[in-house]
Amino acid sequence: MNDVQVVIMAGGQGSRFWPISRMEKPKQFLSISSSGESLIQATARRVASLSPRAPLVVTNVLHEKLAREHLPEASLLLEPLGKNTAASIGFAAVALRKQGIDPIMVVLPADHSVTDEGKLLESLQAGISLASKHEVMVTIGIKPTYPNTGYGYIKKGVPLGSDGFMVRRFFEKPNVERAIEYCKSPDFFWNSGMFVWRASVILEAIEEYMPQLYEQLLTIELALGTALEKSTIEKAFQEMESTSIDFGVLELARNCAVVPAFDFGWNDVGSWDAWAEHFKKDQKENLLHGDAVAIDSSGSVVYSTGKFIALVGVEDIVVIDSGDAVLICPRSRVQDVKKVVEHLKAEERTELI
Amino acid sequence: MNDVQVVIMAGGQGSRFWPISRMEKPKQFLSISSSGESLIQATARRVASLSPRAPLVVTNVLHEKLAREHLPEASLLLEPLGKNTAASIGFAAVALRKQGIDPIMVVLPADHSVTDEGKLLESLQAGISLASKHEVMVTIGIKPTYPNTGYGYIKKGVPLGSDGFMVRRFFEKPNVERAIEYCKSPDFFWNSGMFVWRASVILEAIEEYMPQLYEQLLTIELALGTALEKSTIEKAFQEMESTSIDFGVLELARNCAVVPAFDFGWNDVGSWDAWAEHFKKDQKENLLHGDAVAIDSSGSVVYSTGKFIALVGVEDIVVIDSGDAVLICPRSRVQDVKKVVEHLKAEERTELI
Repeated sequence: MNDVQVVIMAGGQGSRFWPISRMEKPKQFLSISSSGESLIQATARRVASLSPRAPLVVTNVLHEKLAREHLPEASLLLEPLGKNTAASIGFAAVALRKQGIDPIMVVLPADHSVTDEGKLLESLQAGISLASKHEVMVTIGIKPTYPNTGYGYIKKGVPLGSDGFMVRRFFEKPNVERAIEYCKSPDFFWNSGMFVWRASVILEAIEEYMPQLYEQLLTIELALGTALEKSTIEKAFQEMESTSIDFGVLELARNCAVVPAFDFGWNDVGSWDAWAEHFKKDQKENLLHGDAVAIDSSGSVVYSTGKFIALVGVEDIVVIDSGDAVLICPRSRVQDVKKVVEHLKAEERTELI
Repeated sequence: MNDVQVVIMAGGQGSRFWPISRMEKPKQFLSISSSGESLIQATARRVASLSPRAPLVVTNVLHEKLAREHLPEASLLLEPLGKNTAASIGFAAVALRKQGIDPIMVVLPADHSVTDEGKLLESLQAGISLASKHEVMVTIGIKPTYPNTGYGYIKKGVPLGSDGFMVRRFFEKPNVERAIEYCKSPDFFWNSGMFVWRASVILEAIEEYMPQLYEQLLTIELALGTALEKSTIEKAFQEMESTSIDFGVLELARNCAVVPAFDFGWNDVGSWDAWAEHFKKDQKENLLHGDAVAIDSSGSVVYSTGKFIALVGVEDIVVIDSGDAVLICPRSRVQDVKKVVEHLKAEERTELI
């Protein structure tokens, strides 16, 4: 198994988790459980048995200190600015190639949660098995449990032994009718954002489908370990397009595979709505964390860091109190929380971002 | 005009204004305007020209210090516990009789606001004129502007000269169909809770319609100025029924009159909804006070005492942040805010009440 390299993608700003998640301490460095372990620490710990190598963490240069504190054993790749997952994954792949190795990369977002760690490992092992045998890019696919319109969906194609399937097609965030249809079908999976592929395979695909990014990555690769490393990375990232690996590569490539995940209780912790599943729930489906009461209210989420919060007569509302800011938003609108961060940026209220 | 005695009813706890209004400093002692003047100070100042006498303030014994600070010139009557308006008004009336006088009482709640003070005075003068000429109990009636179902309504009867009308009937909080009907009719008025009557006239009516309260008031009257004053008042208030003057007396008596108010911009400041009319309003009818932003939101009310509050995608929501507590409630449910106070009492969370 020393052919495996865990790569943790920790570059996000977590602006959908405002006001708790801040520029200075984004979501992946927050602890979600009573154990006090942060999301990124949990991510690394769960997959530690996959490889004797230390994990490789791609994160923003702003978060270098945090990353070192949370994962002292990890190797860090520091991005001068976030340019989405294609750039981060490509950066990791050329850094590995520069070391003269071509491991199987197990790429994991830093901000997800899992309830059954054994089944997560089984699923990733199936992905590693596929990526060892074939020159494929593997996505871990989650069986949809409800018609989420915020996720990407994957339709499976022909089987690849007992471990998985070729991908027939990727589908971007569907409308609700489509999402309902996909949920009913045994052929569709959510794209978990967990990937397995050999470094050379993803680099070849980037070269084919994102040639400009590939050029920029080559410049970085050449400069790594030299006096020009920092300035070259800065310049390259300035110029890079911001594109996801899904959109830039996977949706175009024909060598994509999917491993139907064993049911490991995946939660992408992509918004307050998802995060709240970890709070205690009352009889009326209110998820309350901290000092709060819900009177004549249902389906609502409250996160308090100290103050007493009272709901009276509300339904499906999210209330998050970080101490210096309070967010109020319907559950159906949690994806738009990032608009507050945009507003604060425009107003230059850096103390609140 | 030295026959007039202003009586300010300041016994309320203002629990519908939680979390800003607290046991230790209820609504009437909060300032609403940028001038810093409290509601009770504004109430006294507006009617100061009606009488050379200092106002008589009926308030809870807990608020003696606050009342003295806010209105140093006033005479205080301290209630050991709140027993609604019949008790407070009766207490004031026997205290005046004990002084050997029988003035015309102008009874005002401490917690209302008025935009045209000149017209308020004209309306009260009309009430004083009626109460001087006739043995009537006068209510200042407000022309309804929308079908509020939380107010009492008054139907006017035969005219009493040019100043007002006899009351045909009082109507308790109507359902919405009734309220719409009342609004359309020129014969209906809101009961403002501002009253004008001679002390002897209201005492006679209390004797007739609330004989038990009258007995208790007599005991108090006898004890006033003696060593037994405090203990007698305490015992009497313990035993008193909690009844409003409207329900206990006015709805039963046949000598009630109504003065249709000149349009003085009355607001009873009875809930956050009403209070919010004093905040600045954005283009989407959001009323924001303090550091707040409303994104994709409309018709909402935010009151912040310091923290930044962000609304995303909400409609007709009230958010009040007092520093140690936050309330979230639909505008249609502001009357139920007192349920939070009841909850906190049951939980013995006195620090939040």
